[in-house]
Amino acid sequence: MSSLPTHNPYFDQSSKDVWSLINESAAAALKAQPDRELINLGQGFFSYSPPEFSITAAKNALDNPLANQYSHTKGRPSLLNALAKTYTKHYGREVTTDEITVTTGANEALLAILTGLLQRGEEVIVFEPFFDQYISNIEIPGGVPRYVPLHPPKDISDRNVKGEEWAIDFEELENTIKSANGKTKAIIINTPHNPIGKIFTREELQKIGDLAVKYNFIIISDEVYENLYYGDHFTRIATLSPEIGARTFTIGSGGKSFACTGWRIGWIIGNPELLKYVTAAHTRICFATPSPLQEATAVSLEAALTNGYFEKTREEYKKKYEIFTAIWEELGLSYTIADGAYYLLVDFSKVKIPEDYVYPEDFQSRAKDFKIAYWLLKELGVVSIPPTEFYIREHEKVAENLLRFAICKDDEVLIKGVERLRLLKNYL
Amino acid sequence: MSSLPTHNPYFDQSSKDVWSLINESAAAALKAQPDRELINLGQGFFSYSPPEFSITAAKNALDNPLANQYSHTKGRPSLLNALAKTYTKHYGREVTTDEITVTTGANEALLAILTGLLQRGEEVIVFEPFFDQYISNIEIPGGVPRYVPLHPPKDISDRNVKGEEWAIDFEELENTIKSANGKTKAIIINTPHNPIGKIFTREELQKIGDLAVKYNFIIISDEVYENLYYGDHFTRIATLSPEIGARTFTIGSGGKSFACTGWRIGWIIGNPELLKYVTAAHTRICFATPSPLQEATAVSLEAALTNGYFEKTREEYKKKYEIFTAIWEELGLSYTIADGAYYLLVDFSKVKIPEDYVYPEDFQSRAKDFKIAYWLLKELGVVSIPPTEFYIREHEKVAENLLRFAICKDDEVLIKGVERLRLLKNYL
Repeated sequence: MSSLPTHNPYFDQSSKDVWSLINESAAAALKAQPDRELINLGQGFFSYSPPEFSITAAKNALDNPLANQYSHTKGRPSLLNALAKTYTKHYGREVTTDEITVTTGANEALLAILTGLLQRGEEVIVFEPFFDQYISNIEIPGGVPRYVPLHPPKDISDRNVKGEEWAIDFEELENTIKSANGKTKAIIINTPHNPIGKIFTREELQKIGDLAVKYNFIIISDEVYENLYYGDHFTRIATLSPEIGARTFTIGSGGKSFACTGWRIGWIIGNPELLKYVTAAHTRICFATPSPLQEATAVSLEAALTNGYFEKTREEYKKKYEIFTAIWEELGLSYTIADGAYYLLVDFSKVKIPEDYVYPEDFQSRAKDFKIAYWLLKELGVVSIPPTEFYIREHEKVAENLLRFAICKDDEVLIKGVERLRLLKNYL
Repeated sequence: MSSLPTHNPYFDQSSKDVWSLINESAAAALKAQPDRELINLGQGFFSYSPPEFSITAAKNALDNPLANQYSHTKGRPSLLNALAKTYTKHYGREVTTDEITVTTGANEALLAILTGLLQRGEEVIVFEPFFDQYISNIEIPGGVPRYVPLHPPKDISDRNVKGEEWAIDFEELENTIKSANGKTKAIIINTPHNPIGKIFTREELQKIGDLAVKYNFIIISDEVYENLYYGDHFTRIATLSPEIGARTFTIGSGGKSFACTGWRIGWIIGNPELLKYVTAAHTRICFATPSPLQEATAVSLEAALTNGYFEKTREEYKKKYEIFTAIWEELGLSYTIADGAYYLLVDFSKVKIPEDYVYPEDFQSRAKDFKIAYWLLKELGVVSIPPTEFYIREHEKVAENLLRFAICKDDEVLIKGVERLRLLKNYL
């Protein structure tokens, strides 16, 4: 047979993405030991159902003929209205529906923003560690990522640290902007932060916002974990000043808000003058977003305005963290205290893995944390995510002793996980 | 306030897309005459619900906790298996799940194929008239569209014509390929065809396939209306030979198959050697596709393998065409006989619209069919789509007297439409 046409070399894969690699390794481990339950604290999906009011709303939508047909590309009126009410409350000013576009998940939201706004060769700043999809979302529309680290304290292996101790060096940040010679188009922040659990402080956000105004670039604030903060409040960069707000695109997620990551409902809040280009890009990427699940998310947001759902969820998650941090105290392993989101970043420096342990090929070329994650999965049956996936190769050292655990699981799953992890005592 | 950052000039809109323009005009017409029911035969959404077995399956999926969480980026096993069975039947050979990727609608399928395979500056051939989203799907990943016309017979205003009379000039097609000097990367075909209703003949497909093998390019066959053909059979280009099949990506749609255009479930069938790059692109565009609606589509496809749903639907659509073609016979307006899909392309040359009729600004700069569509909407309350949207400006003349009507509506809607259209007698 004749040779085939070529492909886009951007999608040549030197190594598998962490999700495929870990999920496939988990499946293989389960197959090898089918009688051992695997405790999956890897990918950030919920082990439990969305709330009953969300499920009921989705079922009701399915009974409405037109809620099964195309939605307007900007989103269904019911969801736009529910979001306008929700963000009016969050922002402390009237937010109108022309500031909102519904997207097919938060990932497509970021891709639409960057596709609608970037010109080829423009630069986008991301903080390290970054969510891996950010990079392709920048590069596919022809942008260039620039990496600025969040610096953890030097003694991270010796004591529990706070999220805010993962610090921005603002001189380093401004130097990155200056060195771009006007090509800096946007900065992406993620607060509450995956995988650190850091909530950016008002002071940090103010400094970032001031730089964005000074150097005239866009702020993209990925706030998909906005409802999961464990202190008194959560500061949104869009609210700091009209100048900052006018250049900020905030991304939210129905999946993270209502425990339905498989519904793929996201949204963007931003200045209509720029949002119109983002919406045009969204139209061409996904055309429109699933209608019955938009209706269900609309009903869910309206319900949450009055039924205390998010307040109750925050209390439940504080309890999940209590369950899941006690074991590390007991083992004497340090972690980063999560101020938000639903992850825990644990330091495994003290865990001694046999030096002659054998790893599959896909893991051999990766940083130390991939090997720790493989060992933990295989030996203890606990799935985690190695965070160097969220670093460029040159900076992997910072995170090579860390593992990320997702705690968005039923308490009983966490309790079983703790029992397994207690076996780490034999390796300290 | 300081000026805002710039946007991607690709999304500057010289004119509104046809869907926004027609939908907004329809809304305005309804507001102006709220007591007149608007008969919407414009956009190709269904006026009725998906079949009961699909709705029930979606509700059942919502009750399964993990069917509300992320799916694998390639698609859920249930849907991949149902598609493998379905295409094994269609293709007359065993189709395996590694030849399949589930996408977030057929539009994202095309974008993922082109993003995964195109390199900047490569050319993609589209037949005119084309579905408008094809062009942005080519251009966003940096490709260049080349237009090859389907030539209607000269006397299209005087008699009903067959779909196959919209002819490909194969010399013109091959010259287009030759003039690209090896830059032709793909051709997109759409069969059954929107808006013509043409089904590409085996001979046409064989010639296209032979050219693809000869000049080593990809065939993308948009077959979203695959189950709606009104003759004896429907030929799929992927089945013509192993050489042709190895370079063909077939796109299908759950929305078109089960009357749920708002579910956004699509899929790609193709050679795994190239499909892996397409899947990698899909991962970065949408990550994964809505889980409960994938489950529902899986159950629907399995059901349709045995319950005669598609056969019954074809019979219902033949009746819809009977209802909706009789009026044009009565009026003496000619149309293209649809062999497939759910549109009718009608020639309005004989309709006399007052010369001093006043059109809104958005319509004034557009071709004649936009004006006819506006007049029909405003005066008779019948919504249609002007097909010059599916042509480049230089070629609009070919279609300037035509209107596209979507007949995927309840019979009673079509009957009401016919009553309104009878008023055209006053303008002949």
